[in-house]
Amino acid sequence: MSQPIIGPGPGRDAAVGQTAPPPTGPAHSDPADQTTLRLRLDLAYDGTDFAGWAKQPGRRTVQGQLEAGLAQVLRLDRAVSVTCAGRTDAGVHALGQVCHVDLPATVVRHGRVLAVADHLAAWLGRALPDDIVLRALSAVPAAFDARFSALWRRYVYRLWDDPAAVDPRRRRWVALVHRPLDCAAMAQAGPALLGLHDFTALSRARPGATAIRRLTQLDLVRHPDGLIELTVQADAFCHSMVRSLAGALTAVGQGRRDARWLADLLDRPQRANEVQVMPACGLTLEEVGYPPPSELASRAAQTRRVRRWEGGGH
Amino acid sequence: MSQPIIGPGPGRDAAVGQTAPPPTGPAHSDPADQTTLRLRLDLAYDGTDFAGWAKQPGRRTVQGQLEAGLAQVLRLDRAVSVTCAGRTDAGVHALGQVCHVDLPATVVRHGRVLAVADHLAAWLGRALPDDIVLRALSAVPAAFDARFSALWRRYVYRLWDDPAAVDPRRRRWVALVHRPLDCAAMAQAGPALLGLHDFTALSRARPGATAIRRLTQLDLVRHPDGLIELTVQADAFCHSMVRSLAGALTAVGQGRRDARWLADLLDRPQRANEVQVMPACGLTLEEVGYPPPSELASRAAQTRRVRRWEGGGH
Repeated sequence: MSQPIIGPGPGRDAAVGQTAPPPTGPAHSDPADQTTLRLRLDLAYDGTDFAGWAKQPGRRTVQGQLEAGLAQVLRLDRAVSVTCAGRTDAGVHALGQVCHVDLPATVVRHGRVLAVADHLAAWLGRALPDDIVLRALSAVPAAFDARFSALWRRYVYRLWDDPAAVDPRRRRWVALVHRPLDCAAMAQAGPALLGLHDFTALSRARPGATAIRRLTQLDLVRHPDGLIELTVQADAFCHSMVRSLAGALTAVGQGRRDARWLADLLDRPQRANEVQVMPACGLTLEEVGYPPPSELASRAAQTRRVRRWEGGGH
Repeated sequence: MSQPIIGPGPGRDAAVGQTAPPPTGPAHSDPADQTTLRLRLDLAYDGTDFAGWAKQPGRRTVQGQLEAGLAQVLRLDRAVSVTCAGRTDAGVHALGQVCHVDLPATVVRHGRVLAVADHLAAWLGRALPDDIVLRALSAVPAAFDARFSALWRRYVYRLWDDPAAVDPRRRRWVALVHRPLDCAAMAQAGPALLGLHDFTALSRARPGATAIRRLTQLDLVRHPDGLIELTVQADAFCHSMVRSLAGALTAVGQGRRDARWLADLLDRPQRANEVQVMPACGLTLEEVGYPPPSELASRAAQTRRVRRWEGGGH
C-alpha cells in the first residue's frame, strides 16, 4: 500500500511527470494534476501538552505542529493541510496515528520533494518537537485517505486502581481510579457491547450524526504490576466513545452498576449522563488498519456513503 | 522481615513500652531507647524533576520531599533523617527504592504513631508530590538498615537506538543514542564484567574508596518495539557505575570499541575517560534485596567492615 521514501524512485521524470503505478513508484493524488504527491505519515505523540489533534488558533496542537514542520522543511509559501485517522482530544496520546498530506504542485514541480526525498523523514523528524515522533513517511496512491480508507482503529485505555501501584514515570498516560476494580466482572460484562450497535448512550455524538459502530474487540487485562489495560477496536469511534466505554466498565468494576445496566445502554436513544467520560490522559490511539492498495478507493467511497463523519475527537 | 502497619499491633503497650520480637510486632531501633520505632518505606519516583535523592539546601530532592512529608503527617517538631538503599543522582528514577527512618521518641511516646498507624501510609502517600509514590510502609526490626543490610541492587538502563522507534510518552525515562546498536555484540561482550572486580575504570569513585564490587547479573534485551533494556545487579554500585557500564557497552554496540577493550577496563587503575557516562534519564533503580530478618544485623556489620561507603549516587 505504501513504500518508504528512500530515494527519488525510478527517476525524477517518473515521479514528477508521469503516473507511476503503485507500489513501484510514488503515485499522485489527483489524476488531473500530475504534480501533486500524497504522503502518508505515521506518528506517535505524547498528548499531555497538546490541545488535541485539530488545529486551533493560538493553541498548541499536533496538527498545527506537524503542518508547521512540513512548511519549514519544504520551505512552503502556503500551509498544507494534514488529515488524520483519529482526531484525538486534548491530552490523548498516540503510538500509531496515521495521516496523509498532499504536497502542493509547486513543491513537486520544482523538484524540491525529489531532491530532499532521501532526507525528508529525517529532516521532518528533527523539525518536530520532542513530544511528536515521526515513525514513518512514505509516498502513497492518491486513493489512500488516512481517514476514510481506514478499516479499523484500536485504542488502549490504561488505568490503575491502587495509588500504591502507580508507576510515577507513567503517570502522564495512565489514569488512576480511587476504588479497586473487579476486572473479572468487567471482562464478563464487556462483550455485550461487541458487534454492530448504536453507541449514542456512550458517545458525545453531534446531533444528526449516526453513532452506529461495529465494535470488534474489547479486552481487559490486569498486568502483574497492577496496570489495567482496556483494548478496544472498531471500524471507527464516536467522539468520547472510548473514554465513555472505559467509564461505563469502571462503574461495573467498582460494583456501582451491573452487567445488565451496561448491556441496556445500547438501547438508549440519548447519551447516558451517569456514564463518566474518563480522563483523557489514560487513552492512547495504538494502531489504524487499512485495506490492501487495490481496495483503498472502494473502502473510502463506502465509508463516506454509510457514515457522516462527526469530526469529533476520541 | 517487615510487616505492613495496618494497626497498632498486639496492643499499644507492646509497641510503645516493650520489645516485641519481629515479625510479630514492631521492634525498636535502639535497645536503650524503647520508644523509637524504625519504619521501612518502599518508594517509586520519577526522577526528572529532582536534583537527585540526597537533600541539598534550596534544591528539590526525593529525600527532602520525603522528610518534609513525614514531618507534616506526624506533626514533628524536628526533622527526621531518612536513609536509602541507593542514592540516585539527579534525573535517575526508582521503582523499588527502599529507605528506613527512625521515628523520634517523642512521637512514639505520645502514642501518635500508634494512633495514626492505620492511616499513616495513606496520609503520607497523599502528602507526597505526584512524582513520588509510597509503595509500602512497614515497621521493621532495628537491625534493618536500608543501606547496609541490602544484599543486592538491581538497576535497568533503557535506551533506543532509532529516533523513529521512540515512544514519546516514555521519553523522560528512556535515553536515545543516535547510532544503531549491535545488541548481539553487546550481549556477547558484557559477561566479561561479571564477578568480583575492581570497577575503578567504570566509576567515579571517591579517592581512597574501594570500587571492588560483585556484579551478579548483566542482561541485554531488545524488545519488539525497539526498546533496549540493560539489567545489572550487584552487591552495590559505585557512583556513576551503571551509567558508565551502559556507556562502555554502547561503545561496543556501536562498533567503536571491541570486547577485548571492555574486558581490559577491569585492569585499569583509574577512571577510563573514553567511557561515556550515559544520561541519567535512562536509569531506574528497580529493586533492592535483603536477607531474612535473622541475618539483618550480621549483614549490616559485614557490609560496614568490608566496604567504606562512598556516599555517591548512581
